[in-house]
Amino acid sequence: MRLDTDPYLARYAERVRGMAASEIRALFAVASRPEVVSFAGGMPDTSALDMEVVEDVAARVIRTAGATALQYGGGQGRAELRELLVQVMAYQGVPAHADDLIVTVGGQQALELIASCFVDPGDVVIAEGPTYVGGIGALRSQQADVRHVPMDADGMQVELLADLLAQLAAEGRRPKYVYTIPNHQNPAGVSLSSERRHRLAELAEDHDLLLVEDDPYGLLDFSGQTLPSLRELVPDRVIYVGTMSKTFAPGVRTGWVAAPRPVRDKLVLLREAADLCPSNLTQMIVETWLATQPWQEQVKRFREVYREKAETMLTALQAEMPDGVTWTVPRGAFYVWVTVPSGIDTSDLLAKAIEHRVAYVPGRGFYADGTGGDQARLCYSYPEVARIREGVTRLGELLHEELALVRAVFGDDAPQVRPRRQAPTSGPGG
Amino acid sequence: MRLDTDPYLARYAERVRGMAASEIRALFAVASRPEVVSFAGGMPDTSALDMEVVEDVAARVIRTAGATALQYGGGQGRAELRELLVQVMAYQGVPAHADDLIVTVGGQQALELIASCFVDPGDVVIAEGPTYVGGIGALRSQQADVRHVPMDADGMQVELLADLLAQLAAEGRRPKYVYTIPNHQNPAGVSLSSERRHRLAELAEDHDLLLVEDDPYGLLDFSGQTLPSLRELVPDRVIYVGTMSKTFAPGVRTGWVAAPRPVRDKLVLLREAADLCPSNLTQMIVETWLATQPWQEQVKRFREVYREKAETMLTALQAEMPDGVTWTVPRGAFYVWVTVPSGIDTSDLLAKAIEHRVAYVPGRGFYADGTGGDQARLCYSYPEVARIREGVTRLGELLHEELALVRAVFGDDAPQVRPRRQAPTSGPGG
Repeated sequence: MRLDTDPYLARYAERVRGMAASEIRALFAVASRPEVVSFAGGMPDTSALDMEVVEDVAARVIRTAGATALQYGGGQGRAELRELLVQVMAYQGVPAHADDLIVTVGGQQALELIASCFVDPGDVVIAEGPTYVGGIGALRSQQADVRHVPMDADGMQVELLADLLAQLAAEGRRPKYVYTIPNHQNPAGVSLSSERRHRLAELAEDHDLLLVEDDPYGLLDFSGQTLPSLRELVPDRVIYVGTMSKTFAPGVRTGWVAAPRPVRDKLVLLREAADLCPSNLTQMIVETWLATQPWQEQVKRFREVYREKAETMLTALQAEMPDGVTWTVPRGAFYVWVTVPSGIDTSDLLAKAIEHRVAYVPGRGFYADGTGGDQARLCYSYPEVARIREGVTRLGELLHEELALVRAVFGDDAPQVRPRRQAPTSGPGG
Repeated sequence: MRLDTDPYLARYAERVRGMAASEIRALFAVASRPEVVSFAGGMPDTSALDMEVVEDVAARVIRTAGATALQYGGGQGRAELRELLVQVMAYQGVPAHADDLIVTVGGQQALELIASCFVDPGDVVIAEGPTYVGGIGALRSQQADVRHVPMDADGMQVELLADLLAQLAAEGRRPKYVYTIPNHQNPAGVSLSSERRHRLAELAEDHDLLLVEDDPYGLLDFSGQTLPSLRELVPDRVIYVGTMSKTFAPGVRTGWVAAPRPVRDKLVLLREAADLCPSNLTQMIVETWLATQPWQEQVKRFREVYREKAETMLTALQAEMPDGVTWTVPRGAFYVWVTVPSGIDTSDLLAKAIEHRVAYVPGRGFYADGTGGDQARLCYSYPEVARIREGVTRLGELLHEELALVRAVFGDDAPQVRPRRQAPTSGPGG
């Protein structure tokens, strides 16, 4: 796919300081050239799917139930699909009932509907910092006041959330909800520890909080481990968002939300105003996939593909990065979050990186408050293994050059070789 | 499909006076029984498609370009599809360039994005009265102040729009836009005359108006006639909304919007926040359909199917309706709009109608202001021809009974045999 039409990237383009959206789009257009290794877009590796099987599934849907597949459906999504999605959740240990679910156009629509349902302009919503750029986009659409809670290698620093809640209470403000991605977070590449999950659930009870648990990557732990979901711990306080984009394919645009009944009813009405109903055709393809194929084996195959790519990237980072660069160590999913020494701005550096034939997403895209200039997201899910090595080598060369330049200009004053701010780092570089 | 999961009907359920949404949903659940003839949901007759061809198209997409079809795409939609949609517009004489288009999740998402882009709470938006219930839904989501312009057999009464514009100007208010369905309007079943199109374009120039031209049915004129589009007359003032739902299939959820560039750019950003991107898979199915199949022949087939059903319904109405009931005479698409004598309320009557094994949508669903209690929409697109006759016979029996009852109670005072308010009537009953 062309990167200049990647919707993720288009979103970042809005959010990177000091450059017009058109400039960033132009940069990413260059980055889409085959000679550039792109760690930018968060795309799954759809080549891990057996296309003959998918073709057979799609053909079967139309052959056996074409008139239904091509017709309008209900705003909540097909009951048959919702039953099967409950099984997908169960495979990960997340409890749900099909009645609780609404099928959405990917997880993104769920985030937008939730924001639209709860947020009035100026309302506080709490999110991890950094967080998913599309999550920020949905909140910005409603003019939310997004407050970030810093992360470390164990995910959101829940005690800092407790402090923020106390501070908000002192101001007489209540957050509408806490938006969190507990598993293999995008972009930080870390998971919320089991202990912190329990503490977050406790805080939710104590402060009468609503939690939005966004979980695209829960099944993609490299070792198949699952931690307790927030929905499991405090079901009445959680709106859970899932997607088939990472465990099957983004092209079917099939996500879902599981919510307490009164919320579910409101979300269905909002969805009907937004786009009437999801596609019966893609819903029935996902249904047939889940009902007739060993989809758990496909999940395991994806895990293996991404584990190998993650190891490749981490080994290469270890070998190629200059001192002072740190990064997180993912145990699942797609992302490594990099922090560079002060003196380097990842937004400013992007054009040079693309000249060096490597692309990433600058960190500022993942914060609502303009911070993140010393950070960047590297996504290893899409490029081939050999290309990952090559891309990291190029990035390493560039950072060595940049640091030499910074040292030449500033002498001993800069760069500091430790990151200046608390960042979610751990492992080889951290 | 089950009517209780029909998203159109779910929407009406919200809007019918004097009944809880749950009651109406329950009614429509009963209405979904096979013994009930439903003129309620606005569903195309997908049985007019050759499913073997559609199966082949879908299989071919995955076989030849599966990795792309199953991947994320861009927020504006695929360039290849936009080029082909321009050809669909050209077949109807509507000018456009592929760069102007955004592919949406049906026409509904286009309406929602447009409302979201332009409307702040309390802003005036002008629409035909009655109008598409999903159009009202999108405007309600933004808390628009919807003002209706009455219709007659030639569509929106444009001189009454001129009056309304003058009145608003006197109040110091400007409408954000005029929402109109010029061709075979849903629900009124009438088209805006050529003369009025020119007058509307003139008003747009004089009053610096933005027009939202919603055109799901333009290709479904029974005789293949097309009138000049507003986009043709005043291109810079028109946001045009199209859909493949009625000329191919709703199940692919493929609509589009054509807008002047600055508006297009804003709409793309809103769409990315809403659901990231449309499905590559369904886009590529539509592309392959348009690029490899004689789709114009399919359009002609749909015209023929709906023409026969319309004639069946009109003949049956002529034979079965009591004096005082009037209706519009469609020259294309799906709908007949019925007005009943005073003393009968179509919302109140729905439960009895379903007991008589026939269903329709009460008129109030199609007005933002609670009027329409003496009107109802009959949609003939989905039921088989013999069922249409049977359904109209049942409705006629019910209305005869009701009128006898009203006369017995009120004597000569009621019902009046002419409709009490200006309604878009013409033809046999009007």
